[in-house]
Order: sequence, then C-alpha cells, then structure tokens
Amino acid sequence: MMKIIVNINKSNYPIYIGKNLFNKRNVFIESINTNRTVIITNKSIAEFYLNKISYTIKSVGIGVDSIIIPDGEKYKTLLTMNNIFTLMIKKKHDRNTTLIALGGGVIGDLTSFSAAIYQRGIQFIQAPTSLLSQVDSSIGGKSAVNHSSIKNMIGVFYQPTSVLIDLNCLKTLPKREFFSGFAEVIKYAIAIDKFFFRWLENNIDSLLKLDFKLITYCVQHCCKLKKRIISVDEKEKGSLRVLLNLGHTFAHAIESYMGYGEWLHGESVSVGIVMAAKTAELIGELNQKNTKRIINLLKRANLKVKGPSKMKANDYISRMIYDKKTIDGKINLILPTKIGLSKIYKNVNQQTIIKAITSCL
Amino acid sequence: MMKIIVNINKSNYPIYIGKNLFNKRNVFIESINTNRTVIITNKSIAEFYLNKISYTIKSVGIGVDSIIIPDGEKYKTLLTMNNIFTLMIKKKHDRNTTLIALGGGVIGDLTSFSAAIYQRGIQFIQAPTSLLSQVDSSIGGKSAVNHSSIKNMIGVFYQPTSVLIDLNCLKTLPKREFFSGFAEVIKYAIAIDKFFFRWLENNIDSLLKLDFKLITYCVQHCCKLKKRIISVDEKEKGSLRVLLNLGHTFAHAIESYMGYGEWLHGESVSVGIVMAAKTAELIGELNQKNTKRIINLLKRANLKVKGPSKMKANDYISRMIYDKKTIDGKINLILPTKIGLSKIYKNVNQQTIIKAITSCL
Ligand SMILES: NC(=O)c1ccc[n+]([C@@H]2O[C@H](COP(=O)([O-])OP(=O)(O)OC[C@H]3O[C@@H](n4cnc5c(N)ncnc54)[C@H](O)[C@@H]3O)[C@@H](O)[C@H]2O)c1
Ligand SMILES: NC(=O)c1ccc[n+]([C@@H]2O[C@H](COP(=O)([O-])OP(=O)(O)OC[C@H]3O[C@@H](n4cnc5c(N)ncnc54)[C@H](O)[C@@H]3O)[C@@H](O)[C@H]2O)c1
Ligand SMILES: [Zn+2]
Ligand SMILES: [Zn+2]
Repeated sequence: MMKIIVNINKSNYPIYIGKNLFNKRNVFIESINTNRTVIITNKSIAEFYLNKISYTIKSVGIGVDSIIIPDGEKYKTLLTMNNIFTLMIKKKHDRNTTLIALGGGVIGDLTSFSAAIYQRGIQFIQAPTSLLSQVDSSIGGKSAVNHSSIKNMIGVFYQPTSVLIDLNCLKTLPKREFFSGFAEVIKYAIAIDKFFFRWLENNIDSLLKLDFKLITYCVQHCCKLKKRIISVDEKEKGSLRVLLNLGHTFAHAIESYMGYGEWLHGESVSVGIVMAAKTAELIGELNQKNTKRIINLLKRANLKVKGPSKMKANDYISRMIYDKKTIDGKINLILPTKIGLSKIYKNVNQQTIIKAITSCL
Repeated sequence: MMKIIVNINKSNYPIYIGKNLFNKRNVFIESINTNRTVIITNKSIAEFYLNKISYTIKSVGIGVDSIIIPDGEKYKTLLTMNNIFTLMIKKKHDRNTTLIALGGGVIGDLTSFSAAIYQRGIQFIQAPTSLLSQVDSSIGGKSAVNHSSIKNMIGVFYQPTSVLIDLNCLKTLPKREFFSGFAEVIKYAIAIDKFFFRWLENNIDSLLKLDFKLITYCVQHCCKLKKRIISVDEKEKGSLRVLLNLGHTFAHAIESYMGYGEWLHGESVSVGIVMAAKTAELIGELNQKNTKRIINLLKRANLKVKGPSKMKANDYISRMIYDKKTIDGKINLILPTKIGLSKIYKNVNQQTIIKAITSCL
C-alpha cells in the first residue's frame, strides 16, 4: 500500500493506493473521525463493493447508511442532490457524519458537492472505483453537476478527508470504461510529462491487459502529478491546473450534443485532445510528427480519434462558448506545443478551430 | 456615506452605508469589475428599486439583466436556484458576471449561494433592503436554503465583493418587517454589547419612528459588530460567531412548524431569545431582573415574547434536534449570562429546556 500526502493551503490529506483497501480496517480508522457515515453509490457498484466496505466500517464501530442513486452521467444534477439531502435529513444526519463516494467520477462529483453544502460542509471520503476516477477526478476537490445540458456548470472546490484507491476495483470495471480512463492518463502525459508519454508508449499493451504492477505504477504516477499541480494551484487561478483541461472544451461539446452517456467522458476527451493538437498544428505551435504520435497512442488505447459522425463543426462552436474558460464569447483553449508541454491560448481564432475540428470528423 | 472595510482571510471588502446609494454611480464603479450583472430580486422590491439601480449601473457602461423570483421564505430552496441557473445559462452568463442581491435576507441568501456555485463561483454584491438584512444577513458570507422544511440546511460560506446599504429602502419596508429586524439588533446587544443594549433602551421609541440619525447609527453599529466578529471567526469554528445564533435554535423550530412566512424570522428570534433567557435563568446563569429587561425591550420594539399558541414544548424539541449545532442528538444552546454576555452551553438538559419553553407559551 502506498500513501501520498496532498498539501493544500494549511490542510493536508492522504491518498491510499493498494489492493484490497476496502477490507483494511486501519485505513478506515485513520480516515473517519465521525460517528456515522453515508455511502453514496449506484446499483452496479453496490453489487460488488457495498457490503464489503460497509462490513469493514461497521467492524470498527462506525455507523453506516447508504444511498443508492441511478447509474449514469445524466443523473449528475441538482435534482439527484436534492434527493440525497432529503434522505440524509430523514435519517437525521448532522455534522458528525462523513459521506463516502463509492463509484466513478459521477458518484465522486455528486458526493463531494453534496458534502460541501450539506449543513454548510461536512467531511467526505473518495473511494474511486473506475480508472478515470482513480487517476483524476477523485483528487483535487473539483466537484460539479451538469445543468441545462451544459457540463459541470454548478459546483465548488471542496477537498476530501482522504482518498482510498482500491486497485482491485478495476477487475470488475467494464472494458469500455477502462479504456476511457486512459484518455485522462494520456492527457497528463501530453500536457505536462514527456517521460510518462514515452513510458506509456512502451507499456500501453500490457496496461490494457491489466498487468497489475504496471497499472499500480500508472495510477500512482498520475496521483503524484495531480497532487503536485493542485498543491500549487488548488482553484485553477494560476497557469498550471488549467492545463489539465486539455481536450475538455471539445469533449464537453461532444458529451452535451450526444446526450450524456452516449459518448463516455474519456472517449470525448480523446477526440478533444486530437482536435487541440490539430489546432496547435494549424497555428504553427506543434509539429505534425507529434500530432501523429499523440493519435497513435490514443488509438492503441482503443480510444476514438474522430468525432461523432452526426456532429458538424458548428455544433462544437455553439457549445464551446459555454466553456468556463470562455469569457465574453472569446474561446480560450489549452493546446499542446510539444509532447509533455502545453499552454493556454486566449481568444483563439474561430476559423482555425473550425478547420481543426473539421479535420477530425 | 460611511465605508467600513471587512477583513477576512487575505481578502477584504467594503460595506457602504448611506442615503440614496442606489443613485451613486461611483459606488457601482468601485464595486463591479465585470462587464455584466444580473440583479436577483422579487416583484415587491423590483417595483421600488429595480429601475433605479439598473439605470445607475447601465449609465456606467455595465450590462444589466434581472431575474425576478417569487416573494417569500418558502421559495428559499434549491428549486428556485435551479431556475435562476437556467435563466443565467440561457443568457450565456459566464464568470465575467456579477450577481446583485436586491432585497431582504431571502434574496440575499439565495443570491450568495447561487454566486458561490455558478461555474464554481462568481462575484456578487449584497444590496440589502430590509432592516434585518442591513444589520445582519448581508454581512458575513453565510448563505443557505431550506430543505424538507428544515431552515438553512444546505449552503456555504461565500463573501460578497461589496455590501451596499441604502438606508432609504427602510421607508418602503412594511412595518411588521421593520419591527422584525429589531430582533436581530437586540440580539447583538444581549449577546455581546451591554452599552448598545442601554442605548437601545434609551432610543427604541424614536428608532421605531424611523428617526434617520438614530437609524443610521444603529445600522452602522451593528455592521461594525458583525465585521469584528467575522474577521476573527469567519466560519463559526471559534467561540465567537456562534454567539450570534442566540435565540435561533428555538426560532427555527417555530418557523418550520408554522410554515415559512407565517411567523417572520425576527418575530421567531424574539421569542427564541426569551426562551434562551428563561433556560439560562433555570440553570442559574442569568438573574430574573435581566430576563425582565430583555423581555421589556423586545416588547417595546413591538416584538412577540410568547410562542405561537398551537405549539407545544415537544413540537420545539423534535425540531431542535435538526439544529446545525446539535451533534448526536445533544442540544447545544447559546444562553445569555448577563446583558451583553453570552456563552455556548453543550448538551443542555431537555427537561430544563422544556420547562423554559413552557413558561413562554
Ligand atoms: N472532479 C474532477 O476533477 C473530474 C475530473 C475528470 C472527470 N470528472 C467527471 O467524472 C465523470 C466520469 O467519471 P467515470 O468515467 O468514472 O464515469 P462513471 O462514474 O459514470 O463510471 C463509469 C461506469 O462504470 C461503472 N463502474 C465504476 N466503477 C466500476 C467498477 N469498479 N466495477 C464495475 N462498474 C464500475 C459505473 O457504474 C458507470 O456505469 C464525468 O462526470 C466527469 O465530468 C470529474
Ligand atoms: N445569511 C445570514 O447570515 C442570515 C442572518 C439572518 C437571517 N437570515 C435569513 O434572512 C431571511 C430573513 O430576511 P428578511 O427579514 O429580510 O426577510 P425577506 O427577505 O423575506 O424580506 C421581508 C419582506 O419585506 C419585503 N421587503 C424587503 N425590503 C423591502 C423594502 N425596502 N421595501 C418594501 N418591501 C421590502 C420582502 O419582499 C419580503 O416580503 C431568513 O431567510 C433568514 O434565515 C440570514
Ligand atoms: Zn476529464
Ligand atoms: Zn437571524
């Protein structure tokens, strides 16, 4: 088991990474300092892990309730949170309760946002079960829900008390979800870490076969990268954390156009990365050879590199203006300039973006 | 015009207090640093002030939209916020928009919470129009909505960019609302300021007649008291800010039992203060003479000192366990120990509380 400490402002919290964490009583003893807990999860995940984790928590003398919400991105809404609050109030949960997010990024985002605002803030733990949530969404305290079919419009920054990454969970994760998670892994590499990119090129095939030693290294490395970034730029006010949005402006357009759940987040991010690379190429910031390396690695990870056939370039643009980086209608994009290096470009020319998108349709 | 600077953490913001502030262009120039604004208000207040304030903001070249929500405590919910977000997204508001809360505490609480979570946080200005919001709710960054008929269950701490207190607004405020505001004024005096209590005893009659010189002093003084408290204890983690909850545990029980809007917040707080005083008397912490002075001042301000006739003591207790200070079913109360001094008492005996309540029915 590995323990990584995240330092944010004056507080810090641990990320535990290992096998069979959900059975480890001492991890929960160290992580929970309230009398009661509420596990938020969905039916698919509950089937595999709810009993296990509940049993461990109860065995150390802490109360457990659970709330099962429907599975899917389209339930990442204020309405679902409203239902969570109604159930918590019914069971008289007060500030002496810790919420536990048991699931992927959807459960993680909903649970952290709920913890942030229930009684103006209670403690919560991330127990991410998908690859995407283990390498990215469970760390860093971003929470959000979707609104009016715009992704992540409503939310806050709110840090967990701890993050428990049980690598065993990846065994039950559907393959398509597993591949999708690699989009965020590859994103880190392109945005900020050329050595990691090279490592991925060398190991992607074994990683996809769930080679445990390699997967362990991969998850640990991504957690360390994210830790480093959020320690200096928690709220994305500086020039660092924003780089992790590489590909996301395009991706959010795909997700909202297609209807949540049709195209997975990672699948959309993969295409978004290619579109960002093409944009960078068009403005002369990235050479074609690098674009090819990027596309090649994404393809090897079974990820898509072309947008959905029914979307035209303008369907992207009309949605990209809702991006949180868009100010006064000016589109700002994260673009790679080399493998392992990226930058924010302000007020990128719309014709150029349209051209880049069109080349990926 | 007076300007009070609130220092919280590393940031600070001004409270402007004066007549005709809503006509003063320079106040808005200093307060707004975005291209657009959205004024959130209700129909009754819009009638008097929306055109005036919109006109001033537009005249300095800043865009104005407005959202009119229904009037009343029962609309202080996530559902109303949901509607606000839908309208804001429709008009493509991004992080370059400032929200302006034009109204009483209900509008203030809804607007600050909305600003805190729209796109993970945008700027907002408090323009409080009721006495209660001018002396209390617009300052300090507490925001919340009600849930499942429990008051202020869901919310965050989020500070405004500035607070604009236009004292002229008090002229159109319904008398019953005006009196209700004095409950919070008197609360400050009992909880932390004996000299102010004496001053109120001397001036309450002229204050109720809206003597402008006295009202100006009164609002300014309350703002200074609140500023002092939140500067050292923003998030109510210390032992100071919590004192401002004097009377509120009882009050919230009345408000939720009676249905929002039946008993005003200040009216309920007034009765709550008397119940707290009686509890303090019963446990030997406050002498009867002081309880009498407290009741006397509240009465002179046209406030109630007896609970609603249809509520029994147990109707209070069953709701008090939802108080945010209640941990594991143990009721914690703020009790006055002298005029101008108060303390938090943990795990107060339920029989004593019931006796105190019963003496006020
Ligand atoms: N907060 C952040 O910083 C951040 C970062 C990246 C992504 N996100 C968000 O995360 C979400 C995507 O996360 P995701 O890819 O985990 O999607 P998800 O939460 O929908 O999970 C994917 C699917 O896999 C299932 N699943 C998860 N773990 C499983 C397991 N161990 N065994 C069997 N089934 C399992 C889920 O039930 C779901 O059907 C998006 O909403 C995205 O916006 C947030
Ligand atoms: N956030 C905090 O720190 C804090 C502190 C105290 C109270 N509160 C909250 O504040 C709320 C009570 O505030 P309130 O007493 O202002 O109630 P309110 O907002 O309901 O306003 C009272 C009534 O007066 C009307 N009104 C307000 N100003 C007016 C004016 N100038 N002219 C004519 N009509 C006017 C309103 O439309 C409303 O009908 C409660 O929800 C309470 O929980 C919050
Ligand atoms: Zn992502
Ligand atoms: Zn109050």
